[in-house]
Amino acid sequence: MAKIAVMGHGVVGSGVVEITLVNGEQLKKRSGETIEVKRILDLRDFPGLSYSNLFTKDFQDIVNDEEISVVCEMMGGVSPAYEFTKACLEKGKSVVTSNKELVAQKGAELLQIAKQNNVNYFFEASVGGGIPIIRPLHQCLAANKIEEITGILNGTTNFILSKMLDDNMPFEEALALAQQKGYAEKDPTADIEGDDACRKICILAALAYGNHIYPKDVHKEGISKLTLADVRYARSWDGEIKLIGRAAPVENGKVTIMVGPMLVPQDNMLSSVDGVFNAVTVKGNMVDKVTFVGRGAGKSPTASAVVADVVDAVKSHGTSISQTWIDNGESMVADYLDDVVAYYMRVKTADVSAAKAYVEQRLPEVEFLDYDGSAEDEIAFVTQPMVARESHTLEQDLEQNGIQPVSKLRILQ
Amino acid sequence: MAKIAVMGHGVVGSGVVEITLVNGEQLKKRSGETIEVKRILDLRDFPGLSYSNLFTKDFQDIVNDEEISVVCEMMGGVSPAYEFTKACLEKGKSVVTSNKELVAQKGAELLQIAKQNNVNYFFEASVGGGIPIIRPLHQCLAANKIEEITGILNGTTNFILSKMLDDNMPFEEALALAQQKGYAEKDPTADIEGDDACRKICILAALAYGNHIYPKDVHKEGISKLTLADVRYARSWDGEIKLIGRAAPVENGKVTIMVGPMLVPQDNMLSSVDGVFNAVTVKGNMVDKVTFVGRGAGKSPTASAVVADVVDAVKSHGTSISQTWIDNGESMVADYLDDVVAYYMRVKTADVSAAKAYVEQRLPEVEFLDYDGSAEDEIAFVTQPMVARESHTLEQDLEQNGIQPVSKLRILQ
Repeated sequence: MAKIAVMGHGVVGSGVVEITLVNGEQLKKRSGETIEVKRILDLRDFPGLSYSNLFTKDFQDIVNDEEISVVCEMMGGVSPAYEFTKACLEKGKSVVTSNKELVAQKGAELLQIAKQNNVNYFFEASVGGGIPIIRPLHQCLAANKIEEITGILNGTTNFILSKMLDDNMPFEEALALAQQKGYAEKDPTADIEGDDACRKICILAALAYGNHIYPKDVHKEGISKLTLADVRYARSWDGEIKLIGRAAPVENGKVTIMVGPMLVPQDNMLSSVDGVFNAVTVKGNMVDKVTFVGRGAGKSPTASAVVADVVDAVKSHGTSISQTWIDNGESMVADYLDDVVAYYMRVKTADVSAAKAYVEQRLPEVEFLDYDGSAEDEIAFVTQPMVARESHTLEQDLEQNGIQPVSKLRILQ
Repeated sequence: MAKIAVMGHGVVGSGVVEITLVNGEQLKKRSGETIEVKRILDLRDFPGLSYSNLFTKDFQDIVNDEEISVVCEMMGGVSPAYEFTKACLEKGKSVVTSNKELVAQKGAELLQIAKQNNVNYFFEASVGGGIPIIRPLHQCLAANKIEEITGILNGTTNFILSKMLDDNMPFEEALALAQQKGYAEKDPTADIEGDDACRKICILAALAYGNHIYPKDVHKEGISKLTLADVRYARSWDGEIKLIGRAAPVENGKVTIMVGPMLVPQDNMLSSVDGVFNAVTVKGNMVDKVTFVGRGAGKSPTASAVVADVVDAVKSHGTSISQTWIDNGESMVADYLDDVVAYYMRVKTADVSAAKAYVEQRLPEVEFLDYDGSAEDEIAFVTQPMVARESHTLEQDLEQNGIQPVSKLRILQ
């Protein structure tokens, strides 16, 4: 019999409790033990549940209970989740979480504490919801050098972009629909400005490259400025616009890492990942590209990833098996302006033919895009790869020639 | 220091040796030990290699060497791979394999022997080449009941189908190209008749449902009778034809399982998996659908999966952690004629309008398909779901009305 605690009885936390009740036999078969929720921490009251008797408002009831061997931290945010997690690990309890904010901020430290206490800190659910990605990445890692990680890591923005593309829905309307369906928060900033995706790519990159990467060091761009025009130009180019998190090793042990909307060509698997689905492509030097696709959020998918971690924590009790990374105090993030990248650009101009002539002269191998019904005072084009820094010079040059840049998106190679 | 042996120095076996040489530092970091190939078993001579001194023609040099803790069986076929694997497990050595034929035939028995001897029998590379699928399936399994497994499990046939669809290449020509590129064997029967895919879906189903499934009990259909007409009709329906292996639990503890070409709608992730890529979709009752995509064959991808298993075998030496299934002597395979399935059919007829009228009367909710340049003496249509057995009655009825069935494909729901 393994006794566990759940801290935070919100959407995912309650899902975890439900799975232990519904799939209990399954869990016993897989972990070798009956898994029982002994305590649930929440400041709110939940009367009328079949398990209302398990609730406590006092963290001490969990951390000081020696019977509890695994704690699921489903609280979200950094504090007090951080202090509670640390205390549980130091008391020899494994901790399982879906809290990407905490892992992205304090992962290295908590993993070290887990190791020192011979327990585990698992966070499969923090990236990609129900998609197994952390363990498969380990597996790829075992025999491969990871050359690139690219992912659609936020379901809300992918839902919005799909609605824009497939239903010609303007951004604001698609966002409102996402909120109505419960995909987006009332304050959707973390989703649409890329913070959420940024935390996840930081976690994946830390795992792959061994050093903690702080989200604040990572360049990110959101999707709030995208218009239907961009989406249609993208289609005319046989591509889709996706919010992509990307990390890849560059010279001197640095990693180029960023989050932003990118033009994804249709022959890239990520282009066909629509709606609230997430996907991660890992490119290894031996295995080439492998892609994992599934529901990146939602109660049951995320809770199922948490419970799978619980099973692993129960099976490995007393042995620290989780992959770790360190925080050596130095940022391994390369300057994103040194990236070499091709761009899609949309510009406004009073004189289209003059603007085209200038662009052609400035960018000899440019490819112009067009679609039925495009605005008469704008042009759009795709460049050859250039150092990102040069794209700013290009924008200045365009402006000096009476051409106003409106959109600039990276192209995913 | 962990010493391993490789049995069979073919494409994958030599790849395994190479990875241990090229990514040695990586492997040490991941497994905690230096991994060294001590012996290689092959009846052929390989002079002039940097490691030619490691070869032996005598299996006893491996099985009786107490220093060797992990053996990679890369020989293929059932015998003598079976006898050698058994002997190694009984001597307390873990065995890692990419041999799907052996796992599909003798998996249950070898897993039991591994368990009894406190060692592991790992076979990640036997399904999906380099794609991590066996372990992610465990992970999904931990918290989910698996409601369905569907997969594109053979890269050769997927390459052929992609060529037919994208380049209008007839089947024979696409097969010849696959052979020329080294994807298909000289005798391509196992690929194009579905035997290879069948072994893999049997392995996945055994893992998911706990009982051994013999390939001989599974209904399978190949792709050799497909024509360009079928592929174009499929496109007109917004679908693609893929060779699909599928398993799903039905009543009475049985599993419906089969391999055959199916019409896959474009909103199914599997429809966009092209060329030599493989993909597996697992549907769990909590996580919904997760899909794993990557190179299903090839030297480096497959060898990298083998080496990842070696790392796991080294790390878990002395503990049996592999998932097992049993062979209870009873087939859990349900009669495929009891499946409920919608069909695509193409038929030849002397009188198209009479045939259409008959089909419409016989199948009230039928959907007719057409494409530019379709043959004048044939029609194609998509049916509503029916019990598979009834599709044979339908074919007889058609024939009795002067309508000759030419193609019949299942539609993947």
